[in-house]
Amino acid sequence: MRWNKISDAVVRRLPLYLRVLDEASRDGEKRLMSSQELGDRAGVSPALVRKDLAWFGEFGKQGVGYEVAYLRDELLRILNLDRVVDLGIIGMGALGHALARFNMDRYRRDPHFRLRVAALFDADPEKYGEQVGDLVIQPADQLEEVLERHGIRMAVVAVPAAAAQETVDRCVRAGVRAILNFAPVHVNVPEHVYLAHTDLSLELERLAYYLEG
Amino acid sequence: MRWNKISDAVVRRLPLYLRVLDEASRDGEKRLMSSQELGDRAGVSPALVRKDLAWFGEFGKQGVGYEVAYLRDELLRILNLDRVVDLGIIGMGALGHALARFNMDRYRRDPHFRLRVAALFDADPEKYGEQVGDLVIQPADQLEEVLERHGIRMAVVAVPAAAAQETVDRCVRAGVRAILNFAPVHVNVPEHVYLAHTDLSLELERLAYYLEG
Repeated sequence: MRWNKISDAVVRRLPLYLRVLDEASRDGEKRLMSSQELGDRAGVSPALVRKDLAWFGEFGKQGVGYEVAYLRDELLRILNLDRVVDLGIIGMGALGHALARFNMDRYRRDPHFRLRVAALFDADPEKYGEQVGDLVIQPADQLEEVLERHGIRMAVVAVPAAAAQETVDRCVRAGVRAILNFAPVHVNVPEHVYLAHTDLSLELERLAYYLEG
Repeated sequence: MRWNKISDAVVRRLPLYLRVLDEASRDGEKRLMSSQELGDRAGVSPALVRKDLAWFGEFGKQGVGYEVAYLRDELLRILNLDRVVDLGIIGMGALGHALARFNMDRYRRDPHFRLRVAALFDADPEKYGEQVGDLVIQPADQLEEVLERHGIRMAVVAVPAAAAQETVDRCVRAGVRAILNFAPVHVNVPEHVYLAHTDLSLELERLAYYLEG
């Protein structure tokens, strides 16, 4: 798989570059941008900008810089964001709700944001049919069917820890290829599926390390 | 500062180890644990477990493993989690609410969770006094005063992008040392303050990279 070759750290910086280029092209601000400026605005050193982008091709010219619109289009293509990407959110507790609203809001307001919340699920029958934005919460036992029918291949898992592995397994069976797991537990996925773990408790716990310096 | 010496990636894994040790000690499960088992349960290779822990001292014995209770206490100390750490949440929109509830809930239910939400703020007068868990939302213009009075040195920033830098500046002035920023914008902090950025949009955007493999 192509993505085994390029480190997570590199991929993690691509959306930062994309955001800078989005801004610059939105404002019609400029046609060319140096790695110095791209780096400054993304919070990355210019050398690292050049190194990161070199993984994917020859985008800039020495002494001239990157063409903003071209590099932006290339990054969109590399990130599979050259079209809208639909995602499902599973687990509509406080966190699932916030994630849904946050993303719907962003999608509505920012024409450059290409991730669309397309389905919401919860296992609690009391939540079935509840409206969130322009969607209604669907029964978690229809997960596979709905994800497959809509061709949704990205999922955000915000279920309790005890339900996380089963939920992830069902997403995988439905053809999901990339999962962002918020459940505070380690889950396993097959090799062809990419799993990112955003554990807010872990994030805060590691932050405490820096309280004494 | 001590923490300049040790990489973020190492610190990021310490709470994973702590969680495994918490579980093992809660269940009174075992007194000793090998780096193999600790690694398996944390999702990290045993070699990396040994390397990470070696940064902080000599915790294990070759062929014997780590003493669970001892290593757990040491990790708590290293992470400054050997006592309860208070944190403030600034920006009580959907995300701020979810973060508050998520952490309050976790703190109430899990005796091993040592992060306590101690203050909530919002700039919208309509939210002042609104109760969330056992706290009420306070006016953002009392931020410095409240954080200082309670000795709160960790902050979660969930304000809109346009308000992020000012909010962070005020946290810094109030003596905050570690900040988790959820606002979708790059902010600057002085060198003695640690800033972590959790941008959910960036996280989802980078995930899209892995949709094609």
